[in-house]
Amino acid sequence: MSLTVVGSVAFDALETPFGKRERVLGGAATHFGLSASFFTEVNAVGVVGGDFGEAEWDVFRRHHINTDDIEVVPDGRTFFWSGSYDYDMNTAHTLDTQLNVFETFQPKLSDRSKNAKLLFLANILPALQKDVRLQCADARFVAMDTMNFWISSMKDAVIETIKAVDCIIINDAEARQLTDEPSIYKAARLILGYGLRAVVIKRGEYGATLFTKDGYFTTPAYPLESVFDPTGAGDTFAGGFMGYLAAQNDINDEVLRRACVYGSVMASFNVEKFGTERVDGLDYPEINQRFRDFKLMTHFDDIPFERSVAV
Amino acid sequence: MSLTVVGSVAFDALETPFGKRERVLGGAATHFGLSASFFTEVNAVGVVGGDFGEAEWDVFRRHHINTDDIEVVPDGRTFFWSGSYDYDMNTAHTLDTQLNVFETFQPKLSDRSKNAKLLFLANILPALQKDVRLQCADARFVAMDTMNFWISSMKDAVIETIKAVDCIIINDAEARQLTDEPSIYKAARLILGYGLRAVVIKRGEYGATLFTKDGYFTTPAYPLESVFDPTGAGDTFAGGFMGYLAAQNDINDEVLRRACVYGSVMASFNVEKFGTERVDGLDYPEINQRFRDFKLMTHFDDIPFERSVAV
Repeated sequence: MSLTVVGSVAFDALETPFGKRERVLGGAATHFGLSASFFTEVNAVGVVGGDFGEAEWDVFRRHHINTDDIEVVPDGRTFFWSGSYDYDMNTAHTLDTQLNVFETFQPKLSDRSKNAKLLFLANILPALQKDVRLQCADARFVAMDTMNFWISSMKDAVIETIKAVDCIIINDAEARQLTDEPSIYKAARLILGYGLRAVVIKRGEYGATLFTKDGYFTTPAYPLESVFDPTGAGDTFAGGFMGYLAAQNDINDEVLRRACVYGSVMASFNVEKFGTERVDGLDYPEINQRFRDFKLMTHFDDIPFERSVAV
Repeated sequence: MSLTVVGSVAFDALETPFGKRERVLGGAATHFGLSASFFTEVNAVGVVGGDFGEAEWDVFRRHHINTDDIEVVPDGRTFFWSGSYDYDMNTAHTLDTQLNVFETFQPKLSDRSKNAKLLFLANILPALQKDVRLQCADARFVAMDTMNFWISSMKDAVIETIKAVDCIIINDAEARQLTDEPSIYKAARLILGYGLRAVVIKRGEYGATLFTKDGYFTTPAYPLESVFDPTGAGDTFAGGFMGYLAAQNDINDEVLRRACVYGSVMASFNVEKFGTERVDGLDYPEINQRFRDFKLMTHFDDIPFERSVAV
């Protein structure tokens, strides 16, 4: 099944304890698309400026991502974000945000993008997310992200969009903020109550947790001794998750569990190098080896305890 | 195999967002012993004052814990700790500590306690831990806890004790403090380097992680919507972990993994009520049901990804 993603395409300037980059390819649709491209055909919907060059397009081409719906504004500049991390890699410090052509982004979907069976609404204005969702009437499974800024400034619009999708993939702080509920377990149940099939809570170095009507599943993060650059990890997770779902015949709880693990696998690669470098160069044996590592590090035999000597 | 625990027996005064108790049975050896008693025979080594009453002894008796080595100082008072928690249940705020008879605690081990095949050194002065460890020459598997106070005031003594045991069970902040290493993965490898067979890092609401020479295993915490009182959760974890090991014929990586899960199972019950109330009233079907829940919430099928359409 094909998969469409709508979201930002950007240049990032990054500084982490491990180094610095003045300008790398970034953006939610980029990280998501690259990650998902290992699993399925991806249509990316976004906007870039005239400064978006062949080196950048090449990344998309290498991964056979359909960029017909990435609009080019020749006299505009691409969305630019600059951020730094200190040793607590869970928190990004924004140094500069220049929305540029992204400020007036109006997603324009070709029939090919509209007809995708799966749709991911990356973090953009909630009303735009809902508008895109309604354009993709035949989508079988639609997931969305959002962010603290929209939750604090227009929670009602965020909730309206949630009611129009099948799955939300957000981090723990956002789940708490959305529901005013400190327990992520209660928060996730409340969000499921909007009619979703699945709520996925991203917990950074602690992994990810999946809530469905009947199920609960949790996967750790991969135990990396050094996280090099966490930018885009959440979108890379979502790309692995949705890409894996798109490659399956059916979406049920068992498949959603494996999708969480593949999402975690892809995110674990993303943070090993700056920007898109690591995922850009990935291959299938590496992906499957890490998937196996996740199995190894969480497996235990289901042997109930029986006391041999009665007390 | 029998199991000896050396540590505090105490009265606790507790205040959490869910209620208040003026005086409940507590202490590391108590929480550990109760938890372990579901799996094996336990000898408890500690000290109490004349204020330790029949109601308290009854808790130990109900669980067939050998209390011969709990010394009674008739004109002394039992160790008393008073603490409170706010909604972030990960942090206890100490309101009062009265060491009382525990201040001059000198563990005295009967032959029965000395001959136990497993030994747990709960959080006491590192030199006393080492002394007890040397008295139990035949112990096949010895584990220890410690705390930030000893690590900051006598790190060398803590390390000397670590070198004399097989396993350490500490929380993530303590692992970082012990090694001056922010990554718990690097910290655990450094601690393993002291010659341990296993390092278990307790991560509160995020579960527990086991490091061995060849293996890595992580289990989440049980998803409780409300944590009622976290006091003693770490010792209850250690009790389930060591108790389960004591009930097995062999201690290998697979068994250590299940021990982590049984530890997490027991800790998840401990926090559901004040003090020892919940674990005191547990039964085997409940324990095995929750163990099965841990399996259900972490299981996924090991199916590597194969892309059906070549790109």
